[in-house]
Amino acid sequence: MTQGYSPLLQRLIEALQCLPGVGVKSAQRMVFHLLDKDRAGAERLAMALEEGSRLIQHCSLCRMLTEQEQCSLCSSERRDKTQLCVVESPADVIALEQSAAFRGRYFVLMGHISPLDGIGPAELGLELLEQRIRDEDIKEIVLATSVTVEGDATAHIIASLAGKHGVRASRIAYGVPMGGELEFIDSGTLSRAMSGRRDIEMSRSEGEA
Amino acid sequence: MTQGYSPLLQRLIEALQCLPGVGVKSAQRMVFHLLDKDRAGAERLAMALEEGSRLIQHCSLCRMLTEQEQCSLCSSERRDKTQLCVVESPADVIALEQSAAFRGRYFVLMGHISPLDGIGPAELGLELLEQRIRDEDIKEIVLATSVTVEGDATAHIIASLAGKHGVRASRIAYGVPMGGELEFIDSGTLSRAMSGRRDIEMSRSEGEA
Repeated sequence: MTQGYSPLLQRLIEALQCLPGVGVKSAQRMVFHLLDKDRAGAERLAMALEEGSRLIQHCSLCRMLTEQEQCSLCSSERRDKTQLCVVESPADVIALEQSAAFRGRYFVLMGHISPLDGIGPAELGLELLEQRIRDEDIKEIVLATSVTVEGDATAHIIASLAGKHGVRASRIAYGVPMGGELEFIDSGTLSRAMSGRRDIEMSRSEGEA
Repeated sequence: MTQGYSPLLQRLIEALQCLPGVGVKSAQRMVFHLLDKDRAGAERLAMALEEGSRLIQHCSLCRMLTEQEQCSLCSSERRDKTQLCVVESPADVIALEQSAAFRGRYFVLMGHISPLDGIGPAELGLELLEQRIRDEDIKEIVLATSVTVEGDATAHIIASLAGKHGVRASRIAYGVPMGGELEFIDSGTLSRAMSGRRDIEMSRSEGEA
């Protein structure tokens, strides 16, 4: 196709296109940048890719990606073992960790229910999740799946799983984001925010004042 | 920074950011895609990167990127050895080859004159170019550098180099692109198109008709 490139150059440009969002033009640009300005970076990347694809597996407890048998969050003694937050992807774990709002442990589904793509309970590791609910001392399952039809369905299935074992299930709040101005919020979100409204509880000192 | 990722995962995400246009978020997305869906692709990419950064060098004649001593275009016997087209990057060579409009050989500057970035004649391999003009039977140098201040300056320097050795220098035409409608063309391009206008030569048969 692209005559003029040497075979190895051609192979490198094709190999880069396995990355999501990278087509021929970006791949060319990447190759020229690496070969011209950052061969050390290319070598580091080659090594990281090779080791990563060989060693990184799923954590045996939470299915997070890790090269260890158990990820650092699961093996940490400082996490609350009675709370389990269920998320769709490893990136969600990182986002929640950065918010520092949750001190329990996680379970990563690596997707959501999607019958058309052949993703059912087995692909999401729900058996492993049920086993953990049965064996461990989990008191609350926090569902943090995405706010889509599939995410809602996934949350529903896991909530009934928790109910079966007498474990409390909760869902993180969906509504107006911080700094959001009502006029610019989509109606789906506003509707969620309205139906999820909560009573304002005055603290005793405020009520007295 | 991003706590929660295992060291190897962290290293892979950082290594991917050596690619131009790839930040933390895209790198995460790439890693999850590769580890989840395309480990074979990751391994192919690792191998291509490793071999590429180790073996790909510049062609000893035209500075094109290649793992051979001479690139396939320079070593081809079917190219016109009297014409030499000077371009800024390997991608330009490929673009011109795809147009099939040039049957001579190339010289790749790997950049353009840019004193602020420390890119002068030496970085562009102009010594090698001068040596080729002196030693080879080159009759015409076609300048196809980009239409920027730097590209123009580069073309000017090479044209005077060619003049010094009594070799004809030409520049590819810059003007309205095919299918371009005048009203949407920027004025810089229109000004180039106007100043570069050419007489319409009627062929003899047309004139007689």
